[in-house]
Amino acid sequence: MSYYIKTLFISLLFIICIFLSLKNDLTKATLSNEVVNLNFNENPFDRSPLILPALQKALKNAAIYPDKAHDAFITKLAEYHHVQQDQLLVENGLSSILRLVAETFLGNEKTLIVADPTFDSLASYAKERGAKIVRVPLRDDYSHDLDSMLAQVDSSTKLIYICNPNNPTGTITPRDQIEDFLDKLPQDVYVFIDEAYHHFAVGSPQYISFIEKPIKDDRLIIGRTFSKIYGLAGMRLGYACSTANTIQKLKKYQATDSNNVAALMAGLAALDDESWMIQTINKFNEIRDEFYLQAAARGLKYIPTHANFIMLDIEGRSFQSVLEHFAKHKIMLGREFPPMHGHVRISFGLPEQMELFWLVWDKLPAN
Amino acid sequence: MSYYIKTLFISLLFIICIFLSLKNDLTKATLSNEVVNLNFNENPFDRSPLILPALQKALKNAAIYPDKAHDAFITKLAEYHHVQQDQLLVENGLSSILRLVAETFLGNEKTLIVADPTFDSLASYAKERGAKIVRVPLRDDYSHDLDSMLAQVDSSTKLIYICNPNNPTGTITPRDQIEDFLDKLPQDVYVFIDEAYHHFAVGSPQYISFIEKPIKDDRLIIGRTFSKIYGLAGMRLGYACSTANTIQKLKKYQATDSNNVAALMAGLAALDDESWMIQTINKFNEIRDEFYLQAAARGLKYIPTHANFIMLDIEGRSFQSVLEHFAKHKIMLGREFPPMHGHVRISFGLPEQMELFWLVWDKLPAN
Repeated sequence: MSYYIKTLFISLLFIICIFLSLKNDLTKATLSNEVVNLNFNENPFDRSPLILPALQKALKNAAIYPDKAHDAFITKLAEYHHVQQDQLLVENGLSSILRLVAETFLGNEKTLIVADPTFDSLASYAKERGAKIVRVPLRDDYSHDLDSMLAQVDSSTKLIYICNPNNPTGTITPRDQIEDFLDKLPQDVYVFIDEAYHHFAVGSPQYISFIEKPIKDDRLIIGRTFSKIYGLAGMRLGYACSTANTIQKLKKYQATDSNNVAALMAGLAALDDESWMIQTINKFNEIRDEFYLQAAARGLKYIPTHANFIMLDIEGRSFQSVLEHFAKHKIMLGREFPPMHGHVRISFGLPEQMELFWLVWDKLPAN
Repeated sequence: MSYYIKTLFISLLFIICIFLSLKNDLTKATLSNEVVNLNFNENPFDRSPLILPALQKALKNAAIYPDKAHDAFITKLAEYHHVQQDQLLVENGLSSILRLVAETFLGNEKTLIVADPTFDSLASYAKERGAKIVRVPLRDDYSHDLDSMLAQVDSSTKLIYICNPNNPTGTITPRDQIEDFLDKLPQDVYVFIDEAYHHFAVGSPQYISFIEKPIKDDRLIIGRTFSKIYGLAGMRLGYACSTANTIQKLKKYQATDSNNVAALMAGLAALDDESWMIQTINKFNEIRDEFYLQAAARGLKYIPTHANFIMLDIEGRSFQSVLEHFAKHKIMLGREFPPMHGHVRISFGLPEQMELFWLVWDKLPAN
């Protein structure tokens, strides 16, 4: 009897300790009053140490229109990518590039074909301008269904958008399939390949960038951004690469002097710090691998990712209940991406933020 | 004889001294190898001391999309102008605002009416989009000829552009005339008032800003910039103010997240330093008054200015010869503004740059 009570007492104490330690972890992290944003695919690591001095230098040029800084940036970027300067166009983030593409190619009585789901900005810019949007579901492996997209092309089709790796799925559409698709596509239909998440996919089989290994084709426009791997989302710096012909078409609708000197100087510094970039890719790879382990330990399904975010299966729970549970613990997750109501998109945060994510996940009520 | 030689010798010595002193001044300034840019109406004075710390703070937010910084800036700007937040739209410089206005109101079979000469960006954005441009010469006093502009309005007219003070003339179109004009204008024609040079005109009779003393009218859009008095041309920060209805129309064509965090933080700091701004206006007024004195001393004609630049009569010389003479001495002046071939536009520089300007002017060959 005394032995039974003693065992019960020790077990109870043990359970209380576990409870308190868990509670303490959660409290420590959530009471810090800092919201953890795992919702916008931003970069949680420090910027390259070259960037602050670049910004300080930018201040000296703050009163002067940005022509010189723009020319220096374009010169550097052309060298970096082994392309001609007139094949590049710099804008205030990839969003501004997509806006420019919409104005150039899409308007009343014109059609844009996109995957479903994919990054929605181009479709919304095109829609505002009166274009028709045709959405083609991703394949079962979440790659673009290029055959079905091709089957949708008609005389009103002006542009096809391929996000590779795709947001929100983090999946890749193989290079050889895109090349085949281009061969079959009518000569007057343009293709925008959004390589915003390029750096996270570099080591992936079947992924080869259309900037790194170019195809000379007026129809092909590639978009890149400094918002992801370079951690400069707030600076708004993105660019398009194509043939000189097509860049000229886009430039027609650009505002003059539209680039910010600080963004250009930060971009120059970022391009100079290749080793920082490689280290950061490695850090993200470690976070992704740890995510896979934690998910496997819980028997959870997810879509293997080639980006700095991942789609996690929410096991039949209502999407809203998952989002609210995390928000209550000050963790913001990605919005719902119809028709994928059964997944939530998690942007990779710092290791300690991901630990917190799993603590909060483990408190999620079952379906 | 000996007296004659002595006088000749002293006179010669005197002339050589003057020559050397002049040459020395010129050489000192021009051999510094720094080009003096009096061509883009930039601000040559140091920025407000609040701006560097603001930029350093911006770096901390560089990885994060600019929503919060944007909201803080709009909140501050609305308080500053005593307007509602939904009456404001922020873009990458006033150029981007003008691009947005062109996309919103001007396209095929639509007409824009502008003064001749005036700041040409809106007309060129409208032209790229297929609009027709009607140019109405300025009056003899270089104010907008609003009666003639009104007479040109037809059913295709969508927008009228009034730059006030006008670039390149630095002249004002009186407030009461603009109000009369608005009364007579059809209800579906919009008016864009470009107040880029507002701060230099604040003390001028007949000038009253349409932001400072607003008229509630959906047709009226006012543009402002941080490129001039605030010395932030490289940062690209400009905004439009109108009714909430009209701002909503413009926002439809904006890219999301298009504002740069550094620009927004610099703008916030600039708005906080009103005393710096007033000091800078005073400095420009001194430079303008000194310019008037120097011009009068040489019997030169100029157009009295309400901006940080001035149109100087080149006394029948060929425009190109004047531009080249100054360029040879590393001073860049404004481009030719047809049909005003007899004037050159000089942006006000630092006092020592303006001294250099006059030294070089005095070496200009006569017509």
